Amino acid sequence: MQNFQFGNPTEIYFGQGQIDQLAKNIPAGSKVLILYGGGSVKKTGLLTTVKDILKEYQVGEFGGIEPNPTYETLMQAVELIRQEKFDFLLAVGGGSVIDGTKFVAVAVPYAQGDPWELVRDRLPVKNALPFAVVLTLPATGSEMNSGAVITRKALKAKLSFLSKAVFPRFSILDPVYTYTLPERQISNGVVDSFVHVMEQYMTYPVKGKVQDRFSEGLLLTLLEEGPKALQEPKNYAVRANLMWAATLALNGLIGSGVPQDWSTHMIGHEITVLYGLDHAQTLAIVLPSLLEVMQEEKQEKLIQYGERIWNLPKEMPAAEKVAAAIERTRSFFEAMKVKTRLSDYGLGQAVIEPIVANLVAHGMGRLGETGKVTPEAVREILKKSL
Amino acid sequence: MQNFQFGNPTEIYFGQGQIDQLAKNIPAGSKVLILYGGGSVKKTGLLTTVKDILKEYQVGEFGGIEPNPTYETLMQAVELIRQEKFDFLLAVGGGSVIDGTKFVAVAVPYAQGDPWELVRDRLPVKNALPFAVVLTLPATGSEMNSGAVITRKALKAKLSFLSKAVFPRFSILDPVYTYTLPERQISNGVVDSFVHVMEQYMTYPVKGKVQDRFSEGLLLTLLEEGPKALQEPKNYAVRANLMWAATLALNGLIGSGVPQDWSTHMIGHEITVLYGLDHAQTLAIVLPSLLEVMQEEKQEKLIQYGERIWNLPKEMPAAEKVAAAIERTRSFFEAMKVKTRLSDYGLGQAVIEPIVANLVAHGMGRLGETGKVTPEAVREILKKSL
Repeated sequence: MQNFQFGNPTEIYFGQGQIDQLAKNIPAGSKVLILYGGGSVKKTGLLTTVKDILKEYQVGEFGGIEPNPTYETLMQAVELIRQEKFDFLLAVGGGSVIDGTKFVAVAVPYAQGDPWELVRDRLPVKNALPFAVVLTLPATGSEMNSGAVITRKALKAKLSFLSKAVFPRFSILDPVYTYTLPERQISNGVVDSFVHVMEQYMTYPVKGKVQDRFSEGLLLTLLEEGPKALQEPKNYAVRANLMWAATLALNGLIGSGVPQDWSTHMIGHEITVLYGLDHAQTLAIVLPSLLEVMQEEKQEKLIQYGERIWNLPKEMPAAEKVAAAIERTRSFFEAMKVKTRLSDYGLGQAVIEPIVANLVAHGMGRLGETGKVTPEAVREILKKSL
Repeated sequence: MQNFQFGNPTEIYFGQGQIDQLAKNIPAGSKVLILYGGGSVKKTGLLTTVKDILKEYQVGEFGGIEPNPTYETLMQAVELIRQEKFDFLLAVGGGSVIDGTKFVAVAVPYAQGDPWELVRDRLPVKNALPFAVVLTLPATGSEMNSGAVITRKALKAKLSFLSKAVFPRFSILDPVYTYTLPERQISNGVVDSFVHVMEQYMTYPVKGKVQDRFSEGLLLTLLEEGPKALQEPKNYAVRANLMWAATLALNGLIGSGVPQDWSTHMIGHEITVLYGLDHAQTLAIVLPSLLEVMQEEKQEKLIQYGERIWNLPKEMPAAEKVAAAIERTRSFFEAMKVKTRLSDYGLGQAVIEPIVANLVAHGMGRLGETGKVTPEAVREILKKSL
C-alpha cells in the first residue's frame, strides 16, 4: 500500500425527506445564493421547495449553469455575489452545478487577478465561500469531494482543480429527486461513476486489499443497479444504491493508498471541449480501447477484475480473460445505452490529431499511473475507438 | 436503505514515516499533553521520537492509562490539564489511550458538574479540547471515530459515549509501529475489528448493497491478513491492510444506512467489567452463541455471509449453511488464538446472572437491531458460551 493522506469533512444527509436539514444547517442570518442549471429544478418544483424552506434567509438565484460549466457563465455569478454580498452558496443540481459553484466559491475572494489563474496554474486556494449541495444527479461525486472541472470556452480548455477549501459543508442526497431524470442522464451517471472507480482501481496491484474490495463493491453495485434504474425509474432502493455508490466512487476513499490513472478522463475532456460530446459518452469511448492498449501494464488487475466482477473462470487463459473483461465492460456501457465508438457520434479519423494536440498543449503528454499514456498511445487508443 | 447522516472530519496520515506530519499539524504555540498507556511507547522509543519532533512546543506527559481506561485514572489527567493549562492533547497508543483522551478532552471544559455525568447521562457534549492520535494498535477504530468507552471501577460500569466534538483532528497510522505488538494484542485487534464489522452487517437486509459489500471486503481482509500477522509480524503489507481495515471497520461509513446490532459488545462490556477479560476475548465468547440464538432474525444475512465470506455453496440447505457460517466464525477466532468459551477463562454458570443483572441495571434490557436480545436471550447466549 502506498502512503496517503485522507480526510473528508463533508456532512452527508442521505434519504427521502432530508431536505428538512437545509435550514438547520445553513448559518442563521446568511445571505444565500441558490445556483442551478438549465431549469429542471423549476419544472420539478424542487427550487420552490428549497426557497420555501429558506424563507427565513435572504435568498437570491443564479440559474443557467450549463453542462461542463463555463468560466464565462460562472464569472457572471461571481460578479453578482461581489455586488450583492451573498455569503453562503447553495448548489441545487448535479455535478456541473456543484463544480461551477466550487469555482464561484473560490473566485469571489480572489481579488488579486483573474480567477481563471486558480485553475490554469493550479494555485493553492486558501479562501472560499462556504457552500452546500442539494444533489439531483448521481454521477460525478462532486457532492462529497474537493475537485471541480471548469471549461473556458474561449480557450477550448476544460481543466480541473482541487482544494480542501471546496469540500461542501454538507450535501443532501435524496434518491427521490433522481426519479425524474431523463434516461440519458441516468445512463451517463452510471457510466461516469463506473469509470471513476476504474480510474482508481484498474492500475497495478499494491496489495491494497481494502481499496480493491471497496472498488469492486462499487463496480458490482453499479453493474447490478444501473440497468434496473432504466427499467424501474421509481425504485427507491435502486436509486439509493446508485446515489451512494456514485458519491463513494469519488470521495477520495477508494483512491487512497493506491495508484491512479485518470487518462480516460483527460482524453475525454478534450473530446468534450472540441466536439461537444457528453462527458460520460467520451469515457465510454475511451476506456475500453485504453484498457486494450495498456493491457500489459494493467494485466494483473484486469485478471482480478475479470474474475471478481465478471465471474470469469480462474482457469481461463490470461489473454482470453483480459479480452473478455474488456469486451464485457464495453457491452455494459452499450447496455446502459451509451455508445462506445467515435463513429457512433459522427466522428472519424480526423479528430485524433486535434485531441492529441490539445492534450499536449495542456501539459498532458504523459498520462496514466506510470506515465505511459503518451501521445503515441493516445493515437492508438483513439484509432481503436473509431 | 435507511436514511442516515454521515460525516467524518478526521484527517488520516497513513504509512511509514508519517510521524513527520505531527509538528506540521499541531497549531504553533500549543501546550501539548502527550497521553499514553502502560509504557510500551517508552520501550519502543516512540515516545522519545514524538517528543523530539515536538521540541518547538511546550510538552507534558501523562502515562499509565490502562486497558479499559478508567474514570479514576483519567480524572488525574483532567486535574493536571486544568492546573497546567494544556490546550492540545496527543494520544499515543491504541484504543484505550484514545478513548481515555476523548473523555479527558470533554471532561476538562465541563465545569458544571462531575464529568462522569456526560457518560452516564449521555449528555450532549459541546466543547472539547482538540486532540490528535499516533496509533500503535489497530483494533478499535477510535482513531477515526467520535465514540469512546469508559470504565468507572467504583461503580463496575463500562459505558460508551458519542460526540462529534471528539473526532480526532488528525491521526497518524504507521503500520511499522505495530511490528512490536505482543501476539495477544494482534489477536485481540483482529477479533475486535471483525466483530465491529459484524455488529453493523449481521442484522437484517435493507438493500444496502454498498454497505454490505464494504463490510464483506473488510471481513475478507481481516480473515486473510489476521493469521498472517501472527506468522509474519514484520510484513508491511499485512500490517497496513489490517490497520486500514480496523480503522474503516468503525469510522461510521459501513454502518450508515443499515441497522446495527451491538449486543455482543454490550454483553461483552459487562463480562470485562465484572471478570476482567480482555475486550476481544468477550466478543469471541459472545458472538458465535449470539448468532446461534438470534439466527432466525439474522437468517438472510447469515446465508449471505456464509456464501460471500466462507464460500459455502449456494445449493447447501439454509440451516446447514447458517450452522457452518457460525462454526467457521468460531474457528476463525480460535485460529487467531482467542478462546471462545467462558470455561476457557475459568468462568462457569455462576457468571450468567450477574452479567444479566448488570445489563439491566445499565438500561440494556432490550438489545440488538430489533430489541430481541432480552435478558432471557442473554441467558441462553451465555449458556451456549459455557
